[in-house]
Amino acid sequence: MSSTIGGSVSVEFGCLRKYEVRRLSTRQGSGRMLSIRASVASSPDTLELSKANAKQAEKTVRVGVLGASGYTGAEIVRLLANHPHFGITLMTADRKAGQSIGSVFPHLITQALPNMVAVKDADFSNVDAVFCCLPHGTTQEIIKGLPKGLKIVDLSADFRLRDINEYEEWYGLPHKAPELQKEAVYGLTEVLRGEIQNARLVANPGCYPTSIQLPLIPLIKAHLIEPRNIIIDAKSGVSGAGRGAKEAHLYTEIAEGLHSYGITKHRHVPEIEQGLSDASNSKITVSFTPHLMPMSRGMQSTIYVEMAPGVNIDDLYEHLNNAYQAEEFVRLLEKGVVPHTRHVRGSNYCLMNVFQDRIPGRAIIISVIDNLVKGASGQALQNLNLMMGFPEDTGLQYQALFP
Amino acid sequence: MSSTIGGSVSVEFGCLRKYEVRRLSTRQGSGRMLSIRASVASSPDTLELSKANAKQAEKTVRVGVLGASGYTGAEIVRLLANHPHFGITLMTADRKAGQSIGSVFPHLITQALPNMVAVKDADFSNVDAVFCCLPHGTTQEIIKGLPKGLKIVDLSADFRLRDINEYEEWYGLPHKAPELQKEAVYGLTEVLRGEIQNARLVANPGCYPTSIQLPLIPLIKAHLIEPRNIIIDAKSGVSGAGRGAKEAHLYTEIAEGLHSYGITKHRHVPEIEQGLSDASNSKITVSFTPHLMPMSRGMQSTIYVEMAPGVNIDDLYEHLNNAYQAEEFVRLLEKGVVPHTRHVRGSNYCLMNVFQDRIPGRAIIISVIDNLVKGASGQALQNLNLMMGFPEDTGLQYQALFP
Amino acid sequence: MSSTIGGSVSVEFGCLRKYEVRRLSTRQGSGRMLSIRASVASSPDTLELSKANAKQAEKTVRVGVLGASGYTGAEIVRLLANHPHFGITLMTADRKAGQSIGSVFPHLITQALPNMVAVKDADFSNVDAVFCCLPHGTTQEIIKGLPKGLKIVDLSADFRLRDINEYEEWYGLPHKAPELQKEAVYGLTEVLRGEIQNARLVANPGCYPTSIQLPLIPLIKAHLIEPRNIIIDAKSGVSGAGRGAKEAHLYTEIAEGLHSYGITKHRHVPEIEQGLSDASNSKITVSFTPHLMPMSRGMQSTIYVEMAPGVNIDDLYEHLNNAYQAEEFVRLLEKGVVPHTRHVRGSNYCLMNVFQDRIPGRAIIISVIDNLVKGASGQALQNLNLMMGFPEDTGLQYQALFP
Amino acid sequence: MSSTIGGSVSVEFGCLRKYEVRRLSTRQGSGRMLSIRASVASSPDTLELSKANAKQAEKTVRVGVLGASGYTGAEIVRLLANHPHFGITLMTADRKAGQSIGSVFPHLITQALPNMVAVKDADFSNVDAVFCCLPHGTTQEIIKGLPKGLKIVDLSADFRLRDINEYEEWYGLPHKAPELQKEAVYGLTEVLRGEIQNARLVANPGCYPTSIQLPLIPLIKAHLIEPRNIIIDAKSGVSGAGRGAKEAHLYTEIAEGLHSYGITKHRHVPEIEQGLSDASNSKITVSFTPHLMPMSRGMQSTIYVEMAPGVNIDDLYEHLNNAYQAEEFVRLLEKGVVPHTRHVRGSNYCLMNVFQDRIPGRAIIISVIDNLVKGASGQALQNLNLMMGFPEDTGLQYQALFP
Repeated sequence: MSSTIGGSVSVEFGCLRKYEVRRLSTRQGSGRMLSIRASVASSPDTLELSKANAKQAEKTVRVGVLGASGYTGAEIVRLLANHPHFGITLMTADRKAGQSIGSVFPHLITQALPNMVAVKDADFSNVDAVFCCLPHGTTQEIIKGLPKGLKIVDLSADFRLRDINEYEEWYGLPHKAPELQKEAVYGLTEVLRGEIQNARLVANPGCYPTSIQLPLIPLIKAHLIEPRNIIIDAKSGVSGAGRGAKEAHLYTEIAEGLHSYGITKHRHVPEIEQGLSDASNSKITVSFTPHLMPMSRGMQSTIYVEMAPGVNIDDLYEHLNNAYQAEEFVRLLEKGVVPHTRHVRGSNYCLMNVFQDRIPGRAIIISVIDNLVKGASGQALQNLNLMMGFPEDTGLQYQALFP
Repeated sequence: MSSTIGGSVSVEFGCLRKYEVRRLSTRQGSGRMLSIRASVASSPDTLELSKANAKQAEKTVRVGVLGASGYTGAEIVRLLANHPHFGITLMTADRKAGQSIGSVFPHLITQALPNMVAVKDADFSNVDAVFCCLPHGTTQEIIKGLPKGLKIVDLSADFRLRDINEYEEWYGLPHKAPELQKEAVYGLTEVLRGEIQNARLVANPGCYPTSIQLPLIPLIKAHLIEPRNIIIDAKSGVSGAGRGAKEAHLYTEIAEGLHSYGITKHRHVPEIEQGLSDASNSKITVSFTPHLMPMSRGMQSTIYVEMAPGVNIDDLYEHLNNAYQAEEFVRLLEKGVVPHTRHVRGSNYCLMNVFQDRIPGRAIIISVIDNLVKGASGQALQNLNLMMGFPEDTGLQYQALFP
Repeated sequence: MSSTIGGSVSVEFGCLRKYEVRRLSTRQGSGRMLSIRASVASSPDTLELSKANAKQAEKTVRVGVLGASGYTGAEIVRLLANHPHFGITLMTADRKAGQSIGSVFPHLITQALPNMVAVKDADFSNVDAVFCCLPHGTTQEIIKGLPKGLKIVDLSADFRLRDINEYEEWYGLPHKAPELQKEAVYGLTEVLRGEIQNARLVANPGCYPTSIQLPLIPLIKAHLIEPRNIIIDAKSGVSGAGRGAKEAHLYTEIAEGLHSYGITKHRHVPEIEQGLSDASNSKITVSFTPHLMPMSRGMQSTIYVEMAPGVNIDDLYEHLNNAYQAEEFVRLLEKGVVPHTRHVRGSNYCLMNVFQDRIPGRAIIISVIDNLVKGASGQALQNLNLMMGFPEDTGLQYQALFP
Repeated sequence: MSSTIGGSVSVEFGCLRKYEVRRLSTRQGSGRMLSIRASVASSPDTLELSKANAKQAEKTVRVGVLGASGYTGAEIVRLLANHPHFGITLMTADRKAGQSIGSVFPHLITQALPNMVAVKDADFSNVDAVFCCLPHGTTQEIIKGLPKGLKIVDLSADFRLRDINEYEEWYGLPHKAPELQKEAVYGLTEVLRGEIQNARLVANPGCYPTSIQLPLIPLIKAHLIEPRNIIIDAKSGVSGAGRGAKEAHLYTEIAEGLHSYGITKHRHVPEIEQGLSDASNSKITVSFTPHLMPMSRGMQSTIYVEMAPGVNIDDLYEHLNNAYQAEEFVRLLEKGVVPHTRHVRGSNYCLMNVFQDRIPGRAIIISVIDNLVKGASGQALQNLNLMMGFPEDTGLQYQALFP
């Protein structure tokens, strides 16, 4: 964004949509994108609009996306396409350096965006905030090297575990930025909103942990369920595995079948247990079995719990209702209504419900999210909105894509 | 649309995104989304909310969706969720009368919308424009009965064929509103934009005809391809068949297989031939073979044509480039790049490209759309935007959902 | 089955493949199928073969398929195509009476089979055994009316519950053949082989109960797991829902998503509890949550159990190994290897394994089957093989179809 | 099987199905299948088993599968599981040397087979025939080095093109066994059956060429269609791309979308044109556009042709009927019936039909196969059956797996 952007205009025009801005900057820049539409140029409104946009551009937050060639990076780009205040000024992707986003992700070809550069060549001078979508293990050092003034939402697992020893145990690597770890705030928005608003570095939660902690933390805090024998049978779409070329994730190996994986050993376990233990003020060990589903997006956690003595299913329902009725993105469905993953596809919602088990004293809790949105890039944007002082739903008002 | 929508007002308020308005009204009401949903029905918040809505309603175009319980109706609702000027004040669905949209389409559960009513019970007094998503054959009479002041976009096939005899031949029914037929404008936006802007009744194109006419009409008009032996091998996702319960469209009958259907007999044939014949000023008969794909959304037309004498593939490319470089939603890809249906999923784009055939003098044209968006509800919204005087991309800036 | 099927004959001719028989009978019959291939007729081998076949035809078991127009009926037909001793002489389908199987199931078009008739018009005089693939609730009366000499494998739920009150409670219907109920043997082959061999009427198990009881019954009998708090998270392909046209099972409603259904209320619950309670000699109540998967075939049960005091995971493994090492169709995988549903697609195998849970004292048991084969028609054939005195794997030697 | 089934009987009739033999040997061995699997490697049972196998081996054709770790290799193994005369005695896979087939393809875990070895370490002394499932470009040299007495069916493209220059042009490699090329017989079974029966080296056709040539060759030979402007719009499942790990074939990149690829440049073009030109006695150039479908198996070719003057659609139908009515695996459907890929899934059938186009004088031809069966391993087995003097359908009597 050019430096000519200034403040007062936003009172008047702050509602202009981003794409209008894009067009303008493109025209002022290299003009390389097809997207400078003649219709924009020729309509009488355009000139007025252009002026407004020029001013508007000064006001946007300049965002960098580190690791833009993976699915979570691309999802950030998709979500920001309609964000009124965030504009992407930097994208990195080491192996795709020099390429346009459209050549790597053709579904984003209609956007005017800077080409990708290697992270080592990135210029952060015109960046206010970054989404860090890099692989686990590589992120700590890169974030350590970023300018201190940047707001950072890290989508990797590198800063999620407060206990550095636990990180080293589960990831088999020494932690390379223990001092930053102390600063990092865990980005489960609805639970830690206050801390996130004031954070500089947010460790964005994993997809499984998001779908599991959102229903369980309020119930554990209120002592409505027992902290023992929490059994989580989780199901995830394949996009959670990323875009790396692996035989096991070929279409032919995934379609029309399912399987469990990482039984008892999935790296999201310590993150889940950390969050639940915090809520319980005691060490919780969970049973966690993820399953890979023949679908690209979507995640369901089916959670089997023991209710505390004297507690019934209505108590659980009411408590969750109270906990989340003011939330935009976490929704407790009407009694008896079953959440489906397809009803949140592409959206930032978490839908949940609770059910009486056949076995007396037990309950079944179901929560669904889109693993790439509320489970990754959507919650990351929700967090950056908060960190930058915007309403947390800004640019996140997507309805689910169904069918 | 109320007459208060004009220059001055829209300068002040026209840019408010819908959800901001909703959030505002919420704040004046109970301060949370859930209560909006409840309040639509019966809660004490309703009065407050009604006032807020009343105000808001003045500023927005009040839209009715007739036939909201089908896929194209639901897609209208999805798209309008982020439209800054259009608000839904009426939804009809005869068999679901009395139900909320969330009970019929749970992916829309987070929206605050009026319950559905039977079309015969619909009150059009607070409606400025309607999307008519009713089945073929039933639509003519219903539209005939609507208040004359309404702007109408009809997504059925009932007004697409200018020649009433042709309608009766292909649909096996007498045309019930021949006088309206004369008034109806065919809504292929990029081709008939001028007429659409001034229309009261727009016959929104079919999905196949949209994907086929967009690349062919400019080439035929310019005499770059022969009007004879145009061979169209089209592929569609299953959502084009609607939500009716049919054995042939069960998951088990569709997944992991494909087949041709309606060979030489598909009802989109006369619509395609009408458009191409208009462009050619001569009667064109096409070969058209649709195929049902194991996917929910998406459509590709692979079109095999003879180039006119002396014409080469670069001529085709350049001509399409000129024709569409100013368009936002129709994009000619870079030379050699193949369009994929997945790159337009959920978006209003049509991507296309042309390729030299191995047989000298022949070319292969490929265009892809999302059958429910540019092939139905998206183009319908594009058209209503035009009819109401807004930029045609208003509320349509969705990027494709991938993966 | 005719009495001429015995040792000596099978020594001479038992190896002739079924399709040879089919061809011959077709030729002697109406000759209507394309499948009387000229090559068969013209090769010198044919005459010899025909003579052998003529004899063979007399010896085969003449099988009726009641309800041949559903998925389990079609699967019976598919499996019998290569059975050396069973030939189909009767197929019923009330709503498809008069049609050929190929017109209802085009994937079976290459078989020469009798046309379907209404069950009321069925002639059982040339039938030795029937597979009854009719809907729950209608089956009791039909089976009551069958000739007493017939061997019957009933794939419906109508005879699975010994306790008639339980049937009436879960199915909401009075039991119409209580005297037959006493005679019916539950057809879980590996568990009740002896009884099945001597049965006239076998109640073939449901798909979920098969996948659940096979691993659990040996462990419960041996007191290796606790009978309390058995939590079953089960996942099924859509074919289990049958071929009825329902909106909820349309491709567009199922693809790329998943959901739980029938929570605590699925009709397979009493069948599961009956089998486990028998094994335990005490009343067992299970937690059972089925999930509908975006796939046509396949079923996995992920079962969370408490091990008995002093028992460890190796004890479970060894016991299952002993229980099933002599079985052809039930396979305990090597330690640590995870069963996938895709590895049994189209086959009669049940693959299983056991895993140590993170929570001390708990275990995770996984079993997978093809719901239409081992979960329905395959096990039915396995049972009829036993009932007719053949090796139970006859005609069931299909490897899984992968990918 | 009755106890009277022993060596002598099988000597007489040779028709014992493979699994019966396996069961017998099992009984003589340890009495259970698991031990067979183990024993192949090293258990004490091996000696006993070896004796049984040794006997059995005398009676069967000893088959080697070169390249057993790919999809076509695995499909050979699946099909041979029920073959009465062919037994696998050698499997090679360079990168998986030392592994069992079950560890590479768990769906084949129930078979008792030799471990895989590197092709350079293969012992061909106990092999009578090989299926060569190696990559294009590597096969010529390997086949050149095989013992001369072996019968060979090569599933690669390395010997399909008679014109060595054409091979070098399309594959960019010098042909490394031009002398063998002269000997190689093209294995389109129904067209070249006589030559195949006497061949030592058969070049098994590609999947696209099989689906295209089967309907076109008879029509071209009979001069019923014009040799010019043959337009082929072909659709394939993803398994045709093999098991190599590529980003483009990840589940997330393929599901719920389709695209054309290799437009005008697919390597099957010269093979198709070679076959059609042979039939026409003139050089034919086709338009060929393959499309990648979101499904694992299945292939459809939709072929648009001009009928010769005076020819009508019934002429085409009758001629194809005559051409194929004696064939077991090629089926012309009843008039008007549309072939579906799902109706041949897992089977060796090719279903086809012809349709009158809307454009006078034109016809639409549709043929479907399973690309891994009739398009690869099934036809290879059909060919080896012929080469070894068995009925060509031996072991190939699989019905399609549907749903």
